[in-house]
Amino acid sequence: MKNLLATRANPDVTSALSGLFPVDDSPLAISLAAGSPNLDYFPVAAVRQAFLTAIDQQGAGLFQYQTAQGNLDLRQALTARIQKWGQVATTADNVVLTVGGQQGIELVAKALLNPGDEVAVEVPTYIGALAAFDLYQPTYHAVPLEPDGLDLNALEETLKRHPKIKLLYTVPDYHNPTGITMSVTKRQQLVDLANRYDFVILEDTPYRDLGYEAAPLPAIKSFDTQGRVVFLSSFSKILMPGLRTGWLVADGDLLAAIMKVRLASDLETTNITHAAIAAYMQANDLDAHIQTLKTHYRAQRDAMVTSLEQDFPDEVSFTKPAGGFFDWVTLPKGMNAATLLTDTMIPRAHVTYVPATNFYPNRDVTNAMRLSFSGLEPQVITTGMRRLADQLKLAIHRQAPVL
Amino acid sequence: MKNLLATRANPDVTSALSGLFPVDDSPLAISLAAGSPNLDYFPVAAVRQAFLTAIDQQGAGLFQYQTAQGNLDLRQALTARIQKWGQVATTADNVVLTVGGQQGIELVAKALLNPGDEVAVEVPTYIGALAAFDLYQPTYHAVPLEPDGLDLNALEETLKRHPKIKLLYTVPDYHNPTGITMSVTKRQQLVDLANRYDFVILEDTPYRDLGYEAAPLPAIKSFDTQGRVVFLSSFSKILMPGLRTGWLVADGDLLAAIMKVRLASDLETTNITHAAIAAYMQANDLDAHIQTLKTHYRAQRDAMVTSLEQDFPDEVSFTKPAGGFFDWVTLPKGMNAATLLTDTMIPRAHVTYVPATNFYPNRDVTNAMRLSFSGLEPQVITTGMRRLADQLKLAIHRQAPVL
Repeated sequence: MKNLLATRANPDVTSALSGLFPVDDSPLAISLAAGSPNLDYFPVAAVRQAFLTAIDQQGAGLFQYQTAQGNLDLRQALTARIQKWGQVATTADNVVLTVGGQQGIELVAKALLNPGDEVAVEVPTYIGALAAFDLYQPTYHAVPLEPDGLDLNALEETLKRHPKIKLLYTVPDYHNPTGITMSVTKRQQLVDLANRYDFVILEDTPYRDLGYEAAPLPAIKSFDTQGRVVFLSSFSKILMPGLRTGWLVADGDLLAAIMKVRLASDLETTNITHAAIAAYMQANDLDAHIQTLKTHYRAQRDAMVTSLEQDFPDEVSFTKPAGGFFDWVTLPKGMNAATLLTDTMIPRAHVTYVPATNFYPNRDVTNAMRLSFSGLEPQVITTGMRRLADQLKLAIHRQAPVL
Repeated sequence: MKNLLATRANPDVTSALSGLFPVDDSPLAISLAAGSPNLDYFPVAAVRQAFLTAIDQQGAGLFQYQTAQGNLDLRQALTARIQKWGQVATTADNVVLTVGGQQGIELVAKALLNPGDEVAVEVPTYIGALAAFDLYQPTYHAVPLEPDGLDLNALEETLKRHPKIKLLYTVPDYHNPTGITMSVTKRQQLVDLANRYDFVILEDTPYRDLGYEAAPLPAIKSFDTQGRVVFLSSFSKILMPGLRTGWLVADGDLLAAIMKVRLASDLETTNITHAAIAAYMQANDLDAHIQTLKTHYRAQRDAMVTSLEQDFPDEVSFTKPAGGFFDWVTLPKGMNAATLLTDTMIPRAHVTYVPATNFYPNRDVTNAMRLSFSGLEPQVITTGMRRLADQLKLAIHRQAPVL
């Protein structure tokens, strides 16, 4: 029998996304794994009204075939938004609506990558981005993160050795999975590198509005003078993921290439939801809603960081995210967060998290974990973190040589 | 400067989909080009209520991240529907919701095709399918259509010469662009060929509910005993395209491969719309709505076929579709429907259609055109067809040798 599947769909290669979230059926279970927003904060009544407004104002035409770029009202609102908060001057013609941020990553990969093409990613990085890139079988180059973002010296060394690198993927704001934010200086320097070494930057910013200490920094795209930066964002974390609406900003040949592959992929995305989001933004103050979200998520972040500082053993290091949903915890060398999860944390602590391995394109790091504080109330986070800390202490103590 | 685009996005290769619909800005313009459903028949009030029902019954959870396969209520309703109308026994676990039928085609192509892999398509065929396959750079084999569907002798000859063919794409019901329907006997024989020559069948059925003479035939999938047939359908033509909801049925390894690439492509589709469609199907009789559609579209089809029979010159041949949206008109050899459109029909008749070329993977047929009767009232169709016929007579007369 022929092998009827494409290499990219080979069942022997597990998708980084499948089985991402470990399952613990215990009634005691606390999940620090899923990066879902807290649905208690969803503005259901306002969005319900927005669907009605869109349908009542636009009638049957709302449900006809539209354009591949997507709803113009929403693209215009987003153009104003990225100008205000990201200092990016662009037009609605440069905005493409997507099925969440995920499709934006996939479209950029599809538009750029032939098999074997070279891609640089910060490590650790968003698992879903690796899964989308994997579809197009690239060669990865891993670039470490520093506390102020991508290590640009390491990136330039990599570019010198691998001048064919086409694409750099980065989550500059409250990075998934580490919570790290790239400094403004580095944003500008990164664009200079892209101009010099001739590559495209995919700037993925689902968390950029969720800063708990400061306003959003200028987007990397704001420093782009050659149309090399694709800015990508999403409503999933600031409104609702079930709306499946992301958006990207691109220019020139890159925009044309993205539109070409988008048209062939799904013609267009769901206009009714886009019209409803536009109506929501017209009738409500999205920024005020985001302020409310930030108040909640800040308290959740504080609960997690406090526990990391007070309860966790000294052998463990961790980030202190200024925004977003995640904290990155590094265990002593030699420890394996994946086996610790299945052997200890699920059966004894009933706490789950996402182990490090899948955040690395080469799956070569095991002693770290992503903790998410987005889905739980502060006191639940504190409870889960204490259980995690207790078991970690035992595990580290057990591992340490007895002198 | 590096070429930063993937081969599939090469701007020198025009997408078959872009510029698909010729533009005529004249107030006299009649478009027989677009295959859009008529928005006058959209059940806007019922769908508006369905959105409310879904939101009010399910609340915030409706808008949270869901599963990659999509809304379970809708998948269950579709399982019952394909059993009833297609004689396919399956389960909700085998149903995957997609962004229209287009994404279903793209996902199957993505799951199966490495560059250069061999694909058989009936010719002419759906332009969007070629665009989706083109993303994965296959080698095409064209198989002609007969009045009762795919020429299976020609297909078997092709399979003997090209035993590596992995995938056959067919629109068996009221085919786009010809309106032809595959006989039940051929459906069964096609599955036998697939078993014998070891390939996958993608059965694309956006029009299968829109038969104006008879009930839908058993799906090709109903004869599938080895999990080789992917059944694909859509709500775009029977409800509203702006809902962007298609669905596919697959089994075993194929299903797993499709799910793997879907997860990496966009995680999941828009749950709010899927929940609304499920609520619509719960509260309304979709089949009764389809009966109403059929009454309208049948009259439109009749207007087109009557004009083809009465007004068109004898040198022209045409199909008589028993359902769907399209008629396929073949001009005398040597005529070019594309240049005829731009040079004559748009400036003189103010009627547009889709010329043949883009419906052929090798772009090697020019003397035919697709006429769509889906978007216009019967009397407008008759007016447009007469104008087309008048200019065709002049053009054929001009071309004919003077004896």
